[in-house]
Amino acid sequence: MFVLLSIFMTLPVLLLVQSTAPNAVAFAESASICLGLGLIGMFATRGYASDLKPRYMFVLTVSSWFIIALLSALPFFLSDNGISAADAFFEGASGITTTGATVFSGLDTMDRDLLLWRSILQWIGGIGIIGMFVAVLPFLRVGGMRLFATESSEWTDKALPRMKTLSRGLLFVYLFFSIIAVVTYRVSGMDLFDAFNHGLTSIATGGFSTSDMSMGKFDDLILMEATFFMMIGSMPFFLFVREMHGQHGVLFRDQQVRMFLTLLLVVPLLLTFHEWWISPDQFDPFHNYTSTLFNVTSVVTTTGYASEDYSAWGSLAFVVFFFLMFVGGCSGSTAGGMKIFRFQLSILILREQLMRLLHPRAVLTRNYNGRAVSDEIISSMIAYTFIFLLCLALITLALAAMELDFVTALSGALTALTNVGPGLGEIIGPAGNFGPLPDAAKWILAVGMLMGRLEILSVVIVLSPAFWRG
Amino acid sequence: MFVLLSIFMTLPVLLLVQSTAPNAVAFAESASICLGLGLIGMFATRGYASDLKPRYMFVLTVSSWFIIALLSALPFFLSDNGISAADAFFEGASGITTTGATVFSGLDTMDRDLLLWRSILQWIGGIGIIGMFVAVLPFLRVGGMRLFATESSEWTDKALPRMKTLSRGLLFVYLFFSIIAVVTYRVSGMDLFDAFNHGLTSIATGGFSTSDMSMGKFDDLILMEATFFMMIGSMPFFLFVREMHGQHGVLFRDQQVRMFLTLLLVVPLLLTFHEWWISPDQFDPFHNYTSTLFNVTSVVTTTGYASEDYSAWGSLAFVVFFFLMFVGGCSGSTAGGMKIFRFQLSILILREQLMRLLHPRAVLTRNYNGRAVSDEIISSMIAYTFIFLLCLALITLALAAMELDFVTALSGALTALTNVGPGLGEIIGPAGNFGPLPDAAKWILAVGMLMGRLEILSVVIVLSPAFWRG
Repeated sequence: MFVLLSIFMTLPVLLLVQSTAPNAVAFAESASICLGLGLIGMFATRGYASDLKPRYMFVLTVSSWFIIALLSALPFFLSDNGISAADAFFEGASGITTTGATVFSGLDTMDRDLLLWRSILQWIGGIGIIGMFVAVLPFLRVGGMRLFATESSEWTDKALPRMKTLSRGLLFVYLFFSIIAVVTYRVSGMDLFDAFNHGLTSIATGGFSTSDMSMGKFDDLILMEATFFMMIGSMPFFLFVREMHGQHGVLFRDQQVRMFLTLLLVVPLLLTFHEWWISPDQFDPFHNYTSTLFNVTSVVTTTGYASEDYSAWGSLAFVVFFFLMFVGGCSGSTAGGMKIFRFQLSILILREQLMRLLHPRAVLTRNYNGRAVSDEIISSMIAYTFIFLLCLALITLALAAMELDFVTALSGALTALTNVGPGLGEIIGPAGNFGPLPDAAKWILAVGMLMGRLEILSVVIVLSPAFWRG
Repeated sequence: MFVLLSIFMTLPVLLLVQSTAPNAVAFAESASICLGLGLIGMFATRGYASDLKPRYMFVLTVSSWFIIALLSALPFFLSDNGISAADAFFEGASGITTTGATVFSGLDTMDRDLLLWRSILQWIGGIGIIGMFVAVLPFLRVGGMRLFATESSEWTDKALPRMKTLSRGLLFVYLFFSIIAVVTYRVSGMDLFDAFNHGLTSIATGGFSTSDMSMGKFDDLILMEATFFMMIGSMPFFLFVREMHGQHGVLFRDQQVRMFLTLLLVVPLLLTFHEWWISPDQFDPFHNYTSTLFNVTSVVTTTGYASEDYSAWGSLAFVVFFFLMFVGGCSGSTAGGMKIFRFQLSILILREQLMRLLHPRAVLTRNYNGRAVSDEIISSMIAYTFIFLLCLALITLALAAMELDFVTALSGALTALTNVGPGLGEIIGPAGNFGPLPDAAKWILAVGMLMGRLEILSVVIVLSPAFWRG
C-alpha cells in the first residue's frame, strides 16, 4: 500500500504537464519516504505467511488507515507554504477519509499540485473504503456490517476467485463513473483542471473543491450533474457490479437504495416548499429547488460541497441540515455517516416492539432485504450507535473545553465522525473553514474522521486493554 | 382520579388561611368541573367489571395523563389574569409531568394561590409517576421497563395484597421526605410559603419556584439541602420502601443508584476544577462547588431549579449541561430523562460486542442488578431510544419551522421530552422562561412533556393505527 501511495504521490507533478509544479521537491521527498517505508516493510515481512486471524485484521486495518493519513499529509507539510503539522495531518486525514473539511482558505490561488493531491487523496480514499467494506468489514463483524456478508466475504479458498472478480468489478465501476464525471463536467463548461478535481471528489463523495466558494461558482446545470454523481458515489458499489453482471434491477430493489432515494426526493421538496412559503417574492422554482437538492444531497451523501451558505437559510434549514449530517449514505459506497441501513434496522425493531406490545404471544420475524436479521446484528448495531453517540459527546466536550462555541463544537465533532465536511455556524460552516481552530482541535477532529471512517468500533477494540491481553 | 384532583384543587384556597385567595372562584369552578366529570364517570361505569387487558391499560394510562393535564390547567385559565389556553395547558402539563418549565414571569408578585397550585400539581405528578412505575409500566413492557418487574407487578390475585403494602409504603416514604424537606427549608431560613412550595417541588423533582430567580435568592446552605432532596427524589422509591422493611443496603447496592451518585460526584468536581483552571482569581472553592453541584444535580434529576444562569458559564459548561439533560435520574423515582439504566444497558451491550469480536465463540451472559437481561428487554430499550431521538428531531424541526433558533429549538424539545424544565440559550435558558414562544410551540412542548413522562412508546402505541384495528 505504501508503494502504491508513493506512485500516486508522483501524479500531481506528472499531471501538470503544461505548467511547472511548485512543490515538486516536496512530492518527490514524500514519495521517496513512502517508497522507502514500503520496500522496508516488504523485505522485513518476506517469507512470513499471511495469517488472517481477526485480531491481526483489526490492527492491520486500523493502523494502515492512520499511517496512510500521516503519510499523505507529507506533501502539505514538506511544501514551502509553511503549513503546520496539525494542518497537514488534518488535511491528509480529511482527504483519505473523503471528509472534505479543509484548513485552507485561498483555494482559488493555491498551488495546483497541492490541489490535485487533495483530490487524488479523496479518490484513493473512496475506492479504499469500498474495498474495505467488501473485504474486511463483514469479516470483522463490526456495527451490524455482517448484514452485508456474502459468500465472497468468507475468506475461504473457494471464495477467493469470486472475490477477485468482485474487486476487479468494483475498480472498473469506480473508474468508469470517475471518467464519466470528469468528462461531463468538462463538457458542461468547467476547465480541465476543475473538471478533473471535481470529478474525482464527486464520485468519492469527498467534497474538496478548487475554490473557496466550493461549487458556488458553477451554474445550475453543473450542480444537477454533481447531484447525480454524488448520489452514484453514495450507492452500494457491489450492486453496480451485480447489475453489470446481468442481475438487472438489484439496485432499485435494494431497501437501502430505496430509502436513500426517497429521502433525497422528499427532503429537498419540503425545504423548497418552505422557502416559497416564507418568501414567495424571492422564489425561483428551478433555481431554489436545484440549490436545495444539491446542498441536501451534498450533506446526506457526506460529500460536503456547498453552492451557498445553507446555514444562513433560516432556522428550519439549519436544523434540517444538522439532522441530515447524521444520516449518511448507503453501506458499500464511499459515503460516511451512520448509514441508512442502521435507521432502517431501528425502524424494524420499533415496529416489532409495537407489535409485541399489542400481541405479546405473536411470533415475529425480522427481515431486511429478504434476509433474516439476527439478534447478533442488532446488538452489534446498538454497540455502534452507542459508541458513535459517546464519541460525538466526548469530541464535542473536548472542543468546548477549548472555548469553541456550542454549535461549532457539536457540528464540528459530528461532521468529523460522519465524514461530511463542513460543520455549521460562522467558523466551520459551509462559508468558513477549519483554519481558525486551535491545533489541538485539528488533531482531535482528524482522529475523529479516521474513527468515523473505520466504523469507530474497530478503532475502539484496538485501543481496548482486553485486545492486547489475549 | 378526577374526584381526587378536585379535592386537591381546593387546597390552594384552604391552605392560605391567613390571607384571602385572589382566585378562589376560579379554583371553585375548576374543582366543580373535575368533581362533576369524576362523578359522571363513576356512575357511567358502575357495574362494569374492570378488565385489565394491556390494550385498555394503554388507553387508560395515556388518556388519564392527558386529561388530568387539561383539567389541572383550569385554575390558570379561569383566573382573572388573562392567561391564554396555550399558556394554561403548558403550565398544567409542566406541573403534572414535574417538568418545571414555566410561561410565567413575575413569579415573586404572582397570586399565591396559583403559585401553590403549581407546586401541588408537581407534587401530585411526582407520586403519580412513582405509582405508575410500580403498577403499570412493567406490565406494559415499554422501553425495557420489564427489567424492573417484580412479582408484585404481575397483577395476580396473590400479588394484590403485596401490591397494596408496597403502595402504602411508597406513599409513606413520599410524604415523609416531603415533610422533612419543608421543615428543613423552614428551619434554614425560608418563610413558610417558600418552604412549603420548594419542599413539594424538590421531592417531586419538579422545579417550579416562587421567584423569577428560581433558587438564586437562597444561600449556599439551602442549595446544599435542595441538592440532597433532589437526589432523594431521583432515587428508586421502591428501594426506600425495602430499606424501611428491613432490607438494609439494597439502596446503595443498586447499580442505578451507584452510577447516579458517581455521576453527581464526578461531573461537578470536574466542572469546578475547570472553573478554577480558567479563572483562578474569581474562584471561591466552597461557593463554586456548591453552585455547580446544585445546578448539575438540578439538571440530572430533571428538577429544573437554577441558582445562576449556568448557560453563561462558558462553552464547556454549556455543552456539559446539554448532554446532562439527556441522562435523567433512576427509574422508579420522580425524575424524567432517558434514565440511567438505559445507558448502563448500552454499556453492557457494548462490552459484550467487544468481547464477541475478540472471542467469537465465547458464551456470554448479560446481567443487570443480578438479573439476566433478555433480548426482549434490549429490543424494547432500542425501540425507546430510537423513538425518543425521533421525537426529539421532529419537535426540534417543528420549533425551528416557527423561526426559533437552533439552540432554543433543540434544547426546548429536549427539555420537554426529558422533563427537565429550563432549556438553553437566551429565551428559554435558566434565566428566561417559555412565555415569549408562539402558542403553537407551547402546545407542542406540552404534548412533548406528557410523551416524555409516559416513556413515549405508550403514547405512540395508542396513536398507531394497528392499535385500533384489533
